Amino acid sequence: MRYPRNAWYVASWEQDLEPEVPFGITILGEPIVLYRSAAGRVVAMEDRCVHRLAPLSRGRCEGERLRCMYHGLLYDPDGAVVEIPGQDTIPPQAKVRTYQALVRHSWIWVWMGDAAKADPALVPPAVGFDDPDYILGKGQLDYAAEARLINDNLLDFSHLSFVHANSFGASESWARNRPKVIPIERGVRVEQWIVGERSMRADAPADRWSTYDFLIPGVLLMTGGSFPVGTAASLDFGRPDLSKAMHGVTFTSQAVTPMREKTARYFFSWGPRRDMGDEKQRDLLMGIAAQAFAEDKAIIEAQQHIIDATPHPRIMPTSADKGVTLFNRLVERLVREEAAAGTPAMPDKIAGENAVS
Amino acid sequence: MRYPRNAWYVASWEQDLEPEVPFGITILGEPIVLYRSAAGRVVAMEDRCVHRLAPLSRGRCEGERLRCMYHGLLYDPDGAVVEIPGQDTIPPQAKVRTYQALVRHSWIWVWMGDAAKADPALVPPAVGFDDPDYILGKGQLDYAAEARLINDNLLDFSHLSFVHANSFGASESWARNRPKVIPIERGVRVEQWIVGERSMRADAPADRWSTYDFLIPGVLLMTGGSFPVGTAASLDFGRPDLSKAMHGVTFTSQAVTPMREKTARYFFSWGPRRDMGDEKQRDLLMGIAAQAFAEDKAIIEAQQHIIDATPHPRIMPTSADKGVTLFNRLVERLVREEAAAGTPAMPDKIAGENAVS
Amino acid sequence: MRYPRNAWYVASWEQDLEPEVPFGITILGEPIVLYRSAAGRVVAMEDRCVHRLAPLSRGRCEGERLRCMYHGLLYDPDGAVVEIPGQDTIPPQAKVRTYQALVRHSWIWVWMGDAAKADPALVPPAVGFDDPDYILGKGQLDYAAEARLINDNLLDFSHLSFVHANSFGASESWARNRPKVIPIERGVRVEQWIVGERSMRADAPADRWSTYDFLIPGVLLMTGGSFPVGTAASLDFGRPDLSKAMHGVTFTSQAVTPMREKTARYFFSWGPRRDMGDEKQRDLLMGIAAQAFAEDKAIIEAQQHIIDATPHPRIMPTSADKGVTLFNRLVERLVREEAAAGTPAMPDKIAGENAVS
Repeated sequence: MRYPRNAWYVASWEQDLEPEVPFGITILGEPIVLYRSAAGRVVAMEDRCVHRLAPLSRGRCEGERLRCMYHGLLYDPDGAVVEIPGQDTIPPQAKVRTYQALVRHSWIWVWMGDAAKADPALVPPAVGFDDPDYILGKGQLDYAAEARLINDNLLDFSHLSFVHANSFGASESWARNRPKVIPIERGVRVEQWIVGERSMRADAPADRWSTYDFLIPGVLLMTGGSFPVGTAASLDFGRPDLSKAMHGVTFTSQAVTPMREKTARYFFSWGPRRDMGDEKQRDLLMGIAAQAFAEDKAIIEAQQHIIDATPHPRIMPTSADKGVTLFNRLVERLVREEAAAGTPAMPDKIAGENAVS
Repeated sequence: MRYPRNAWYVASWEQDLEPEVPFGITILGEPIVLYRSAAGRVVAMEDRCVHRLAPLSRGRCEGERLRCMYHGLLYDPDGAVVEIPGQDTIPPQAKVRTYQALVRHSWIWVWMGDAAKADPALVPPAVGFDDPDYILGKGQLDYAAEARLINDNLLDFSHLSFVHANSFGASESWARNRPKVIPIERGVRVEQWIVGERSMRADAPADRWSTYDFLIPGVLLMTGGSFPVGTAASLDFGRPDLSKAMHGVTFTSQAVTPMREKTARYFFSWGPRRDMGDEKQRDLLMGIAAQAFAEDKAIIEAQQHIIDATPHPRIMPTSADKGVTLFNRLVERLVREEAAAGTPAMPDKIAGENAVS
Repeated sequence: MRYPRNAWYVASWEQDLEPEVPFGITILGEPIVLYRSAAGRVVAMEDRCVHRLAPLSRGRCEGERLRCMYHGLLYDPDGAVVEIPGQDTIPPQAKVRTYQALVRHSWIWVWMGDAAKADPALVPPAVGFDDPDYILGKGQLDYAAEARLINDNLLDFSHLSFVHANSFGASESWARNRPKVIPIERGVRVEQWIVGERSMRADAPADRWSTYDFLIPGVLLMTGGSFPVGTAASLDFGRPDLSKAMHGVTFTSQAVTPMREKTARYFFSWGPRRDMGDEKQRDLLMGIAAQAFAEDKAIIEAQQHIIDATPHPRIMPTSADKGVTLFNRLVERLVREEAAAGTPAMPDKIAGENAVS
């Protein structure tokens, strides 16, 4: 798994982290327990008791602390064991790794790398349920596939014409046109006009603008809208003023989180701008998303199967892969830089008296 | 997996390959897509798009061609990419491997080795649904076991007495008698008289003759019939004239196709000769076959489990293994000869700019 | 898997080994077939036919013998093939390994090591259904976890306070008090007073005494009883006379059998002493056990998952681990001694003409 560690990964929907209920997720192969303490603090730590490696995510919140419910070791939010029932002294090495975590835009984000570099300004500017401008729905899917394959999918919308001809009603223009792909800070921007077509069950043809940023570690933030036919040409295919769109302005935030080598969790929200839709429209979009994202999952998991059956898999990029290639090069560069800087992945294991096996 | 590549492997029932509907199967570990083009041609090619390795078996037939339904690359029946949507030039290496394929005796056969050696005369002479002499039923089973174990089973009918005492009503004579086992071109022939016994729910004792060829790569073709008691002795246990059988003349064609290392697909047809049975008799035989082949599957998959749990598995052949031994030596010889002749298995992967992982 | 081989492992409940019905179980990674012959003898042998490695546990008992139901080889209870249908001579190497086996205390025990050392006196003194003093119920559970993790669990009852707060109604005293842990012959003894508390839905507080032996290879034998508050102190926390208990005297026998690397079978019985309960009380206890042992299975299998996700797992023992540590050291010592003495594990495979693969 070659993914940057110095990045904020989505671990959960904010709504799914109930107060004082521990929540386990594996990110980049590392089991992590999240909890929201009595005081409301979000804590993320290694999901592995120092004693006998039971998962703390099966534990019990006690105020600010978390107790392992196997033999009762109690952990402070800083990862230190503060109580071993029936034992007076606590060894100084009795401590699990903690992770920087924060809540923003309705997601719980966890920083997987060097804590000193965990800059909240690096959280991608997703749109959460607290944004008054949008009426959002949400969903998530677990993939039996490497996260990178999902990123690749999201970076090349030429697949819309084939994978999503039914769900999104995407025409072949998505495959035949090449979007503008622009490198940006920690990501790529993809912009595109689809001209003079009906989009997603709309009644009349329009010029459809869409733009998205795909950001480290794997976050897609997209908006767009429909304009009178002729708008694209009149703008010389440049950026329109979305506040002047006729209809169809929506926003979607999507995040791909690598769990294990070949599993990933995909989080998404979508909905209309408040002035251009309502709850009913939002639900319609979520129905389309459910169908479309199941189509992606089917082809990507099938792709993973073929890759697994291939001794020396090689790809052959096309001109539609510009975004994919730029983003994967960025990932590779960040991974290399982190390796050079010695970013600690998992700290050395605390050595007990006995190895387990 | 040590199997000859220069051989016709059964990939599907002809009836299951619907016009212009791609069909995927893995043979000898290689994912293959089959389709029957608009003009009726049967095409077999590598089930792996050159672009990002999505399976072409999830694609769409377009006349003679097959389109990958991930990003829309279009393939000619010769494996060459002829269209990349939105891209003018197509790299010359944009090509997948193709396989020789043909339809015969109701099966789709795929040649897994050197295309130059793909001689249709090497297709085993199975009996298909187009044969006016037989009234056939068909079935298939997927095994969680190495194909070779199924071949071994089919090459030694001494198991009938124990595995199929109920389904086939086989007596212990099948285990106690030794059939005549004769090496033939690309296989072995197994001939046997079971004398003076009731067979398969027949009313009266008879002398039962059976003969089968077991042919490369793993195809069993068997017939036989029942004669008055005394016939075997009067013929000095030689071949009878099946046209003079009292009753019970049937034909069964069976094929074992290695899919992955420890999975295989087993295809079979069976039925009475038209002058000795009808659809009702055919259905009765298919009911018996369903029971009997489930018995084989149970013991063979259990055998595979034990082999998997055995560090250095060794067998101890018996005198009943003559057919097994002859056939497996033939397989070994063909595999060695192919290795010596440099039969191309999979061609070297087309190198793209990036490896997948 | 580091477990002693010179030990009696529980293979089955006596009641589950029906006369002349072969029964398969894998112990220490070795497939074993058990059967009770027509004369009532319990036979344990390698579950792997010498011919083609089919499992003998799918075979047929014939008097004292067992016939492989693939091609009909017949085995004597000493493991020797005595018949190969249709073949006059039997190679002398046609023999499977046998294991010493016996029935005692309602369990079938199998000796996995050197047969010459298979001393029946080493069978742990469990309480079976033939014991007139107890009214027992029984159960078993299959674990997707290494047997050692279950042993560890049973050797440290501090987990009762956290894992079994509901089922057993265990207070935190189980975690805060340290039991007396005494090395004994082939095991450890764990003794404990829980003072002045209500235990397991009892009405009034009592002093609760419990004592168990945990014996090689992984057998727990526990009894205990409730006494008037003050008894523990009056005995200076020494052993009480269980015949003078007020109520709650029960006995439980439990056995952990390693099957494969990360699977185990857990057998248990429990019930009241006849003078202190009845069938109804026994059924109540079995209901509690079903709940409690499901709690153990959940945390232990979760622990196994975390261990599997940990590159170099290390534990950090606490003062509650005295029993665990003593027992595991004993196991290690026995394993080392056996290695030094050259205890035969599996004998060298009988070499046939052909290897299977």
